[in-house]
Amino acid sequence: MKNKACIVGGGVIGGGWVARFLLNGWDVSVYDPDPQAQRKINQVLNNARRSLPSLYDKALPTEGELLFHENLADAVIDAKWIQESVPERLELKQRIINEIQLLSKVDSVLGSSTSGFKPSDLQKNALNPHQIIVAHPFNPVYLLPLVELVPSVVSPITVLDRAKEILTSIGMKPLHIRKEIDAHIADRLLEAVWREGLWLIKDEIATTEEIDDAIRFGFGLRWAQMGLFETYRIAGGEAGMKHFISQFGPCLEWPWTKLMDVPELTDSLINEIAEQSDAQSAHLSIRELEQLRDDNLVGMMRALKKSGSGAGGLINSHESTLRTPVEDKQLPITVSRQVPQSWTDYNGHMNETNYLEASSQATDAFMELIGADASYIASGYSYFTAETHIRYLAEVKAGENISITTQVLTVEGKKMKLFHRIFASSGDLVATCETLQLHMDLNTRCTSLPSEAVTEKLSFYTKAHANMSLPEGCGRYVGQSP
Amino acid sequence: MKNKACIVGGGVIGGGWVARFLLNGWDVSVYDPDPQAQRKINQVLNNARRSLPSLYDKALPTEGELLFHENLADAVIDAKWIQESVPERLELKQRIINEIQLLSKVDSVLGSSTSGFKPSDLQKNALNPHQIIVAHPFNPVYLLPLVELVPSVVSPITVLDRAKEILTSIGMKPLHIRKEIDAHIADRLLEAVWREGLWLIKDEIATTEEIDDAIRFGFGLRWAQMGLFETYRIAGGEAGMKHFISQFGPCLEWPWTKLMDVPELTDSLINEIAEQSDAQSAHLSIRELEQLRDDNLVGMMRALKKSGSGAGGLINSHESTLRTPVEDKQLPITVSRQVPQSWTDYNGHMNETNYLEASSQATDAFMELIGADASYIASGYSYFTAETHIRYLAEVKAGENISITTQVLTVEGKKMKLFHRIFASSGDLVATCETLQLHMDLNTRCTSLPSEAVTEKLSFYTKAHANMSLPEGCGRYVGQSP
Repeated sequence: MKNKACIVGGGVIGGGWVARFLLNGWDVSVYDPDPQAQRKINQVLNNARRSLPSLYDKALPTEGELLFHENLADAVIDAKWIQESVPERLELKQRIINEIQLLSKVDSVLGSSTSGFKPSDLQKNALNPHQIIVAHPFNPVYLLPLVELVPSVVSPITVLDRAKEILTSIGMKPLHIRKEIDAHIADRLLEAVWREGLWLIKDEIATTEEIDDAIRFGFGLRWAQMGLFETYRIAGGEAGMKHFISQFGPCLEWPWTKLMDVPELTDSLINEIAEQSDAQSAHLSIRELEQLRDDNLVGMMRALKKSGSGAGGLINSHESTLRTPVEDKQLPITVSRQVPQSWTDYNGHMNETNYLEASSQATDAFMELIGADASYIASGYSYFTAETHIRYLAEVKAGENISITTQVLTVEGKKMKLFHRIFASSGDLVATCETLQLHMDLNTRCTSLPSEAVTEKLSFYTKAHANMSLPEGCGRYVGQSP
Repeated sequence: MKNKACIVGGGVIGGGWVARFLLNGWDVSVYDPDPQAQRKINQVLNNARRSLPSLYDKALPTEGELLFHENLADAVIDAKWIQESVPERLELKQRIINEIQLLSKVDSVLGSSTSGFKPSDLQKNALNPHQIIVAHPFNPVYLLPLVELVPSVVSPITVLDRAKEILTSIGMKPLHIRKEIDAHIADRLLEAVWREGLWLIKDEIATTEEIDDAIRFGFGLRWAQMGLFETYRIAGGEAGMKHFISQFGPCLEWPWTKLMDVPELTDSLINEIAEQSDAQSAHLSIRELEQLRDDNLVGMMRALKKSGSGAGGLINSHESTLRTPVEDKQLPITVSRQVPQSWTDYNGHMNETNYLEASSQATDAFMELIGADASYIASGYSYFTAETHIRYLAEVKAGENISITTQVLTVEGKKMKLFHRIFASSGDLVATCETLQLHMDLNTRCTSLPSEAVTEKLSFYTKAHANMSLPEGCGRYVGQSP
């Protein structure tokens, strides 16, 4: 029998749960009396379908079946996981949980999405308190892995274990909160920042945008990969976490925030933190942690370049001020760059894909040289790649500088054949890439002739390269004898 | 004349400034009486050289010249930017600033890296208060763009403007803090979280690792791209920021943190926040913000897959539980996946590079099928790509599902020629990739014969594919007539 989840309450959070289960192959039944629920959930599902599968380099299981029910009894039948995501009012949650328990089997997991209430609050007067746990997710539930899993003192370990197993199987990160507390862990941290942020706005120190910029151009990028304490462990350097806390400790007495109820930094608390930090991170030296942090920062900021958000937009602006050297051996230099760490594969060298990535950048740069640039593309014309041949001649390591020259082989109407040579900084030829480009009308998606301006600029290069000999390795098929 | 920066104090922060200026082509002089300063700065520089240039798809300017000076007078000569990064003691900073001002020109920018002191504190009794501003960076200074730029009431706008221009030119994000305050903005937010975190540990609710996990598997990923308020704007949905605050407002009265000195949420404060949020984000609808957020989350989490940190490690684990369908048309299916948003280029379709990325994953999967898997590679053997030919037959859009079959064309000793066919979910052939793989000894980096086990498994496929006809399009050179 297929796995089935029942989602009670179909707002943004409930809808996110629907998507998370459904796209991981579970059947999902929804109960929500709101007539808008179906429309809202479909919007969340559309977002989820375009993003969640993109996290993986393999296909997710076939989507399950989604059913909306008009009564709770039908929705909960045979569900292995029942998730309550109704509005944040205790008596409402208690009432719904009671109804669910009257109708469902005792051995399904009954999770609540509550941000603030303790599981013992939800268990009060329940038919079967043992079944109820807090499973607090984060928006967007279909992408963010974190689920705070909070038991009360009466919750059996078997229920927790089953919950962890199911959440893990749908790609989530169950974080077992060992001691229940209002607002669990993450929302306590968020609430502290929120309160400080409100003060900054009220005191007219900063606007919402300035506060967001202070986060996303700075520590937000550190936190996305390591969180707070591992980041500070690195800041402590070789002297370690204990040293860092002793140094940072005095600030607790200073008016660095309006939130002034602070714990006393006793030796015992300092030791506790240092020991926990060792348990968490001591398998890596500070040097290794630094390089891991840097590789992650580079990877994430390169990802943000795509959308131009935050640090990514800034890097794009800065990059546009950088100049590429103009010419080498009478050929235009179309790429000059360092090989990033993230281009390295399991063989310890630049992956085959990134030779083409660099060559593709060379084609883009050559297109700019002939006026087939961003504004030309915006006007509805571009070049598409029809065929490409790459020879891999030497390994390239991360951190090396490479440059690419581009030679025009032939131009015939809408066809343009280019030959890129990739050089190491030593001058050694490390790869060649022969590529056939077709000029396209972006509206009809059919081939077309380039504009007069592009044709003219292109003919400058065609003439300049006409008397050069054909490059070694062009016109080859794969495996041809040298 | 070349740009020159002078860095006074060469710890982690001073060293980061050195790297940031140097790798952006500035000459840098350093003054730090610590005999270890040179060694420490070189360590920071090594980290910076392997990571900062990786952010860009163009080469950074040629590195400037780095000089260490034994006296301050030599260090400050002709410097356009002087940055003080000595330990966080006010009287020490004031004394050093005085010495600098006795020796240097008035028209250079004199920035202080102080985390906590206000510029007016530093300007007290200074020779030339107008020259001094706070320029507070974040570790690692060579990668994180944020610099809090804080003037006092006496700071002239010209000094600020020059500082902004220089910081922008070295790839940083100067955030002008309009009203000076202890600890500026970012460290106030950090301090609030730090205090709450200490309480969580002291009350034995969570360990350092659990707190870090609560951040990096959850809201840390949101903050790295959008910060706090834009994230909440999305959470408010169509009803907007004002609705969100009114909803979230009551929590301020609840014991969701131990930090209880909270501002009163008056109508005027709510309006102020909603208006600032409109000014910041109203150019995008909530739906557009959601998709931007999701694309960024996917991009960053895909980047973290490389190192296996945080959410990236979790995705790798989950991915390993996903199965690829086994066989199609008597050929093994080596890839079955969705095309992520980040594979789309300016032509609105999957970039040429990602056709090869998918084909490269197919080669990896075929290697696993013949036993040339991770443990085989760990034992010192692998396959390298020598030559590749790709035909682009149809466009592929983000969100489409593609699958790849792999046919063995020929195997001769250490050579293995494969032919990948990429299919859309419609069954249409969208590309082919012919690739010549060479078996390698990873220690000598020379070709070698595969192991007996690999040879045997490979011959199973060679025999199975021996009677198949040669695929259309194999053995082609670029531009060959059909």
